[in-house]
Amino acid sequence: MKAIQKRVIIENVKPEVDGGRFPAKRAVGETVAVEADIFVDGHDALSARLLHRKAGEPEWRIQPMSFLVNDLWRASFTADELGHYEFTVVAWIDRFETWRNQLEKKAVAGQDVSVELMEGAGLVQSAADRAGGEDADRLKETADFLTSEAPLPERTRKALGRDLLRLMAASPDLSALTEYGKILPLRAEPVKALFSAWYEMFPRSCADDDPGRHGTFRDCIERLPYVADMGFDVLYLPPIHPIGRSHRKGRNNTTKPGPDDPGSPWAIGAGEGGHKAIHPELGTLEDFRELVSEAKKLDIDIAMDIAFQCSPDHPYVGEHPEWFRQRPDGSIQYAENPPKKYQDIYPFDFESEHAESLRQELLSVVQYWIDQGIRIFRVDNPHTKPLRFWEWLIAECKREHPDTVFLAEAFTRPKTMYRLAKAGFTQSYTYFTWRNLKWEIEQYFEELTQTRVKEFFWPNLWPNTPDILPEFLQIGERPAFILRLMLAATLSSNYGIYGPAFELCVNEPREPLSEEYRDSEKYEIAHWNLNEPHSLRPFIKRINRIRRENPALQGTRNLMFHPVEREEILCFSKYTDDFSNIILVAANLDPHHTHSAWVKLPFEEMGFEAEPTFQMHDLVSDARYLWHGDYNYVELDPRVVPVQIFRLRRRMRTESDFDYFM
Amino acid sequence: MKAIQKRVIIENVKPEVDGGRFPAKRAVGETVAVEADIFVDGHDALSARLLHRKAGEPEWRIQPMSFLVNDLWRASFTADELGHYEFTVVAWIDRFETWRNQLEKKAVAGQDVSVELMEGAGLVQSAADRAGGEDADRLKETADFLTSEAPLPERTRKALGRDLLRLMAASPDLSALTEYGKILPLRAEPVKALFSAWYEMFPRSCADDDPGRHGTFRDCIERLPYVADMGFDVLYLPPIHPIGRSHRKGRNNTTKPGPDDPGSPWAIGAGEGGHKAIHPELGTLEDFRELVSEAKKLDIDIAMDIAFQCSPDHPYVGEHPEWFRQRPDGSIQYAENPPKKYQDIYPFDFESEHAESLRQELLSVVQYWIDQGIRIFRVDNPHTKPLRFWEWLIAECKREHPDTVFLAEAFTRPKTMYRLAKAGFTQSYTYFTWRNLKWEIEQYFEELTQTRVKEFFWPNLWPNTPDILPEFLQIGERPAFILRLMLAATLSSNYGIYGPAFELCVNEPREPLSEEYRDSEKYEIAHWNLNEPHSLRPFIKRINRIRRENPALQGTRNLMFHPVEREEILCFSKYTDDFSNIILVAANLDPHHTHSAWVKLPFEEMGFEAEPTFQMHDLVSDARYLWHGDYNYVELDPRVVPVQIFRLRRRMRTESDFDYFM
Repeated sequence: MKAIQKRVIIENVKPEVDGGRFPAKRAVGETVAVEADIFVDGHDALSARLLHRKAGEPEWRIQPMSFLVNDLWRASFTADELGHYEFTVVAWIDRFETWRNQLEKKAVAGQDVSVELMEGAGLVQSAADRAGGEDADRLKETADFLTSEAPLPERTRKALGRDLLRLMAASPDLSALTEYGKILPLRAEPVKALFSAWYEMFPRSCADDDPGRHGTFRDCIERLPYVADMGFDVLYLPPIHPIGRSHRKGRNNTTKPGPDDPGSPWAIGAGEGGHKAIHPELGTLEDFRELVSEAKKLDIDIAMDIAFQCSPDHPYVGEHPEWFRQRPDGSIQYAENPPKKYQDIYPFDFESEHAESLRQELLSVVQYWIDQGIRIFRVDNPHTKPLRFWEWLIAECKREHPDTVFLAEAFTRPKTMYRLAKAGFTQSYTYFTWRNLKWEIEQYFEELTQTRVKEFFWPNLWPNTPDILPEFLQIGERPAFILRLMLAATLSSNYGIYGPAFELCVNEPREPLSEEYRDSEKYEIAHWNLNEPHSLRPFIKRINRIRRENPALQGTRNLMFHPVEREEILCFSKYTDDFSNIILVAANLDPHHTHSAWVKLPFEEMGFEAEPTFQMHDLVSDARYLWHGDYNYVELDPRVVPVQIFRLRRRMRTESDFDYFM
Repeated sequence: MKAIQKRVIIENVKPEVDGGRFPAKRAVGETVAVEADIFVDGHDALSARLLHRKAGEPEWRIQPMSFLVNDLWRASFTADELGHYEFTVVAWIDRFETWRNQLEKKAVAGQDVSVELMEGAGLVQSAADRAGGEDADRLKETADFLTSEAPLPERTRKALGRDLLRLMAASPDLSALTEYGKILPLRAEPVKALFSAWYEMFPRSCADDDPGRHGTFRDCIERLPYVADMGFDVLYLPPIHPIGRSHRKGRNNTTKPGPDDPGSPWAIGAGEGGHKAIHPELGTLEDFRELVSEAKKLDIDIAMDIAFQCSPDHPYVGEHPEWFRQRPDGSIQYAENPPKKYQDIYPFDFESEHAESLRQELLSVVQYWIDQGIRIFRVDNPHTKPLRFWEWLIAECKREHPDTVFLAEAFTRPKTMYRLAKAGFTQSYTYFTWRNLKWEIEQYFEELTQTRVKEFFWPNLWPNTPDILPEFLQIGERPAFILRLMLAATLSSNYGIYGPAFELCVNEPREPLSEEYRDSEKYEIAHWNLNEPHSLRPFIKRINRIRRENPALQGTRNLMFHPVEREEILCFSKYTDDFSNIILVAANLDPHHTHSAWVKLPFEEMGFEAEPTFQMHDLVSDARYLWHGDYNYVELDPRVVPVQIFRLRRRMRTESDFDYFM
């Protein structure tokens, strides 16, 4: 059929990332709701189908789409295995349904429909010709009956009957099928890619028994119950490789290290080896594998740091000088941000003639650690390496290991961050770390969770990192730590903290206006007293339990902000698709003063049928409140707890619930 | 070069409609600002170029793009001829600029840059190899000098000098050029497509001298000065073809016409002819051509109605029964919306086997009237004919006649309206007719003018049509007519009224709750007293003059709403790109009561440098006001005039402007 004769239009199919150039992402097991604008000139009835399949499957699976409103159609499928899916949409004019609708209206109006029945008989006869076996016979019979001598009301009843509707639906006329034209990709990611709680710690600071001793993987194994008890399920370690000695940085990033200064773990590579080696003072590969397997027993994944850069002592420098940029004086180009020089770091030259062997080697680094049982990688500064390199590397890894997760540590401009996510990074660091005011939190999270960004960018929120002690924590003290933790843990289903600095509320900067920690672990071994009474440990444990127990907090696209007429109070909810679990968070963003406000909830969007009375169960304090009507009161004292995490319990017991009511 | 090695990313090029499937639209002579997100990993400097050409030109014209902010780049070109344009974007890493930036910072910091100069010499030498003639010599010389024995500061100066920058820019290294990959289409439309004032009238009601006589084209010629004096430049006539007699509708749409009832002009076709014929009572083809040419002298275009449907008496019915749907009883399918029957109308069957000859015939109808000098077509109910048919027909017409304009009369669901605009309709009727409250006006016009819709959908606003006497006009009376006229004329650069019913404030519905006019001209000949004292004629004349004198009102994408803390007062501005013409409109949406409010203007976005004092010149009343500071007061009495149209005059005279100041 000529394209000009296809009357149905299919537009705006979602989820679609950059016209299908990149896959949309869902966690495995998640429902994928596919929507499309489908319409036709005039008033003909339409039918539409979602076609979907695991990539590589020869046949489409077919799902009828439902009309919602305003030319919008929807159908869903479940991405029940890791890996790539494909989907598209087709639609056609449903001539039988069109005819049937009109027949019904005419019959109701008492008009003579004998000619209509002749027309219908033609449609039914065509369906009989398309159908096979028994259906064909029954359709043929019906067609004959519609034009028979039987009384008109009887024939009309037959024409409008469910039997015929079912038979006709089974043999649709697809001769004028419109195809969307594009096959859209989607990737099913591991569940932990969507729902995870990260804990970052320096292994060398884990020698709890002996201040000053270099911690080992064995010490990390000792530390595991502490991490697991708080409820974290990803333990992220800064680089564990041998550390360079040339231009090593001393304490507080000075350029004159003492003889015992351990150096920055990100200055990777020394005589003992490079990206596939382990820093001898941490232990052996066997120790590391034991750490991975002991962690696994506590449902903790070890996340590796991937920092593709070298110290001048890295074996690559001697073995593969062609992977670095040679300067005209024969030296190798170190990293710089003029006039600053980072002589302890050699970046790779991805534009070298030998870039292909470089790329293969870097891929082999990731694959090496995959072979050691690692599935989660936190990638250092990916925005300083080519975007298409990452697209290739992550695709290569995921081909064999679709269960891998890559977190992009790209604190850079938004478009680069989004492109990295499109190129394959599963999770991304965000600007959350600096978003403190209500309007900026709302604006940013609307962008992340309600715009097209939600299809590919999965935020992982960090209130702090070894590089960033935000001003808000410096001045807000303990209430600020609690507030930021609770926001991170509830705004996104993925979040993390850099500890023990976080739970111990460490907030001294290297100097005023600096976001660097004083005596940063990046340059020295720290010793922490994990049992300090002001530790947030019990509090964090409770928050992580609330997350585990409430499915609404295990997704991020399900975020809805609520209007509150007070700038200090942020209010939002998260909910499961069926509204069986609704969590309402009310946060006082001012860590110094008590604030109160009236909160307005959009009951209709939350699936309530009428103005309800319901119970609000604060999962933090375990207090329960009775709420009623549009506006309800909250008051938050940051010295007690700056955030309430309510579970909205809709079913109120009444007198009729009790035995003696009868 | 392998794709993986291309480091530059180009995304989100605008204007782009549905990934380039449809052209964006601009009026001929308008500046086309092309924007793109362009970025690269790391900190390298970029260069980007806009490539553009008239479709069919063999060579691209090339425009350097400028970096704006946040990875956004922009360049512009002028679409200075009617028809199709193409454009795309390319970008590359500017290695010389990257190197130069770093050199400058290092030199300023007093670092030794001798190795840097060697590196630079290499870049300059490569440019010399690419360059021709004199440039090559000068580059070669410079490369030598940079590595010469001359003092370092002298060589550094040379390296950073403007001469070298210019030479290097002339011979860029395009070896790693990234192309956007898509060539995007754009169509330059006639100026009147973007800026027009329409007047609709029934020719048969133009016999001013003789109530009851059937008006003729000669009467229309007499009426032209009246229309021109009010300032309209498009005169739109309902269909002028012979009117069918079978099932003709009588006065007020009754099914029992009197013998003299003239019938609806949309029931096209009778013994006298069809879509290429003229209703004998209106005159001859020669009369019509004279009307067209007399109108042209007054800068008025005659707009034809294209209604692709037939009365049962249309010659097509006998000559081409294959273009209609035959029912099993041998009858032809008339239009219906069950249980309603429109037996006076036969729709075409675009799905007939003979649709190709039907399409060709319908195209020939439009071409016939193009040959009679018509360039503007108002298309009746395009949403009841296939969307791809219109895409084809309009493209065919525009190929030879890019100066044609098609207005879609599609009062239907939004996605169909938008698709018609994408498919080629130049202008579109809108929901403005029913948008009366502030929030609904703001929401709708934000959608039309600030979202992607603005690239293809050009609204033509009608406060009334022969089919629609909106409730607001029925109950609001004269102030409502003035208000709706002024909103239509200022919110969009294209607007129209159905007169003389509009300027005479006719507001009686056929029955309560109906939007049909009582004694509608659609079914009878009307006689109007154009000189009634309450006529809005002088007022309309003033509004149209204000539109002609203020370029800000000659575009629609330049609309900005301003916050006013009063639901009854709507405030918006329109401005030229250079802010030389800024129009502020303040409208009282309540036709019954006076309201006042404080208006806040966003001075920064309007190009003011500091908090200004400026003159507000109300172009309606000719009153002048002095405004100062962020908030200023407006008060609007609907019985005087419900709208003020201020021209913001920025230059305030002070004492120093006067001779005696010295």
